[in-house]
Amino acid sequence: MSLSSTLPSKVKLVDVGPRDGLQNEKQMVPAAVKIELVQRLQQAGLKEIEVTSFVSPKWVPQMADAAEVMAGITRQPGVRYSVLTPNLKGFEAALATRPDEIVVFGAASEAFSQRNINCSIAESIERFRPVVEAARANGIYVRSAISCAVGCPYEGEIAPERVEMVARLMKGIGVQHCGVADTIGVGTPIKVQRALDAALRHFAIDDISGHFHDTYGQALANTLASLQMGVWQFDTSVAGLGGCPYAKGATGNVSTEDVVYLLHGLGIETGIDLDRLVDAGQYVSDFLGRKPNSRVATALLNKRQSAG
Amino acid sequence: MSLSSTLPSKVKLVDVGPRDGLQNEKQMVPAAVKIELVQRLQQAGLKEIEVTSFVSPKWVPQMADAAEVMAGITRQPGVRYSVLTPNLKGFEAALATRPDEIVVFGAASEAFSQRNINCSIAESIERFRPVVEAARANGIYVRSAISCAVGCPYEGEIAPERVEMVARLMKGIGVQHCGVADTIGVGTPIKVQRALDAALRHFAIDDISGHFHDTYGQALANTLASLQMGVWQFDTSVAGLGGCPYAKGATGNVSTEDVVYLLHGLGIETGIDLDRLVDAGQYVSDFLGRKPNSRVATALLNKRQSAG
Repeated sequence: MSLSSTLPSKVKLVDVGPRDGLQNEKQMVPAAVKIELVQRLQQAGLKEIEVTSFVSPKWVPQMADAAEVMAGITRQPGVRYSVLTPNLKGFEAALATRPDEIVVFGAASEAFSQRNINCSIAESIERFRPVVEAARANGIYVRSAISCAVGCPYEGEIAPERVEMVARLMKGIGVQHCGVADTIGVGTPIKVQRALDAALRHFAIDDISGHFHDTYGQALANTLASLQMGVWQFDTSVAGLGGCPYAKGATGNVSTEDVVYLLHGLGIETGIDLDRLVDAGQYVSDFLGRKPNSRVATALLNKRQSAG
Repeated sequence: MSLSSTLPSKVKLVDVGPRDGLQNEKQMVPAAVKIELVQRLQQAGLKEIEVTSFVSPKWVPQMADAAEVMAGITRQPGVRYSVLTPNLKGFEAALATRPDEIVVFGAASEAFSQRNINCSIAESIERFRPVVEAARANGIYVRSAISCAVGCPYEGEIAPERVEMVARLMKGIGVQHCGVADTIGVGTPIKVQRALDAALRHFAIDDISGHFHDTYGQALANTLASLQMGVWQFDTSVAGLGGCPYAKGATGNVSTEDVVYLLHGLGIETGIDLDRLVDAGQYVSDFLGRKPNSRVATALLNKRQSAG
């Protein structure tokens, strides 16, 4: 089977580094650094950025500056800025900052849902109904993300039927987009295709995205398998922000750099300048006092060093 | 496009860690450690191991103990042991140690061939003719490996026509197997498929293997693309042994652990016990005083630590 005729010609990446990435970093990052990171990402050509989360600072201190960050970014035409809004209070705070999109989360694992938010999957999604209604009434696009869509740290493997159910419930409350997230990075290509197939029962291919973690190094293989289904939107995290593979309990978002290299190698347009992206990743990695968690960034930075 | 119906049901991995891996490690590894590594690899279920190289110790001091290592391993029925023999002198030394296979190398890049061995591609392959003849006269199977099959550190991208030429010349001197090696890890799936297609003009699918490096994190995506063409043999390196000599600090050979995780996740049989493989990788990594260069090994070792 030759790939060249079957892949999408363009792909849109959503950089989730400033939110999903930094939220999982222990070290507190000042608003000014987050704002500069967003700036560098859009200068590198990212057309959508998950900026922050309007969540209780008691639970997530790293996101306590959500409003400050949203107010501080210089918006570029053609770039979309999304934020997480776990409840109506969060949504109201977010609304004042004029996000283009909000994101709501539901797990495909009952055990995960119970342990994390102390309610069933169905209840957790029903709670988003007023948030989704308020967003849509305000003309704000609503994305959902299905976490643990392939595996769960408590339940193990997740059946595609669970993903289908979450997608159906999300569609039912008025959500417009469905992200399929392998939150713990255990997925391999066929399992990921099955999870995406399940979501496709309720969302069109243009309203689906993949969100992969590189914990087991499978994220690019999973991306390739998704592309072969026609999926053309992916969440990625600059410098692999959101967990170092050498730290216990690492989450390991796939790095934007690695995905861009794959896509460009496949002849797929992203609008992203890989060199500037590597710079953006180096900027935030320098702040965190470590190397970018990206093989492409590592290889290109080594190459620059040898050349220089 | 769904993958599940198109993939091979079984895959054979050749662990090249003891040779290709250790050869690129600066630290000298004693024969006893190499022998123990081979032992652990076969206990983990590897059915073919690239053990050593019969090359001048002046050029490659790490392989000076080739005969000692071959004499020291305890052979298991059903396991094949291969060695590199760059010339007739090397082959004669190897012959006394009874290898099942020998490996000869040719680059798909003229610049690489000139800079490394000071002759053209065609000349370099012609020089192997007496080696291949001697091997076949002794009933020893001959593999070839085409290095720089996708990219070259001096020439950049390599056209599939170069790979086709090397495969044709290798076939012409009586080689039985063709490995397609992305030596510097720059390949992406379509480019890799084109290189494999070129080799397939002269070798049957059962006589082809893929050899990928993870320098840019693309090895598993390239493996998936190869599987989709029906390729079912791959070189991998336990614990990701072997750096890339052309990119400082960059990672080299794809780790056997990461590939096994991918294959098992796809429902493909390998005969390999992943836990024992991780142990083998940890053994040699401990000796080298570092962590295994494998995301799967890292994730599984972290998991064991949390569980313990």
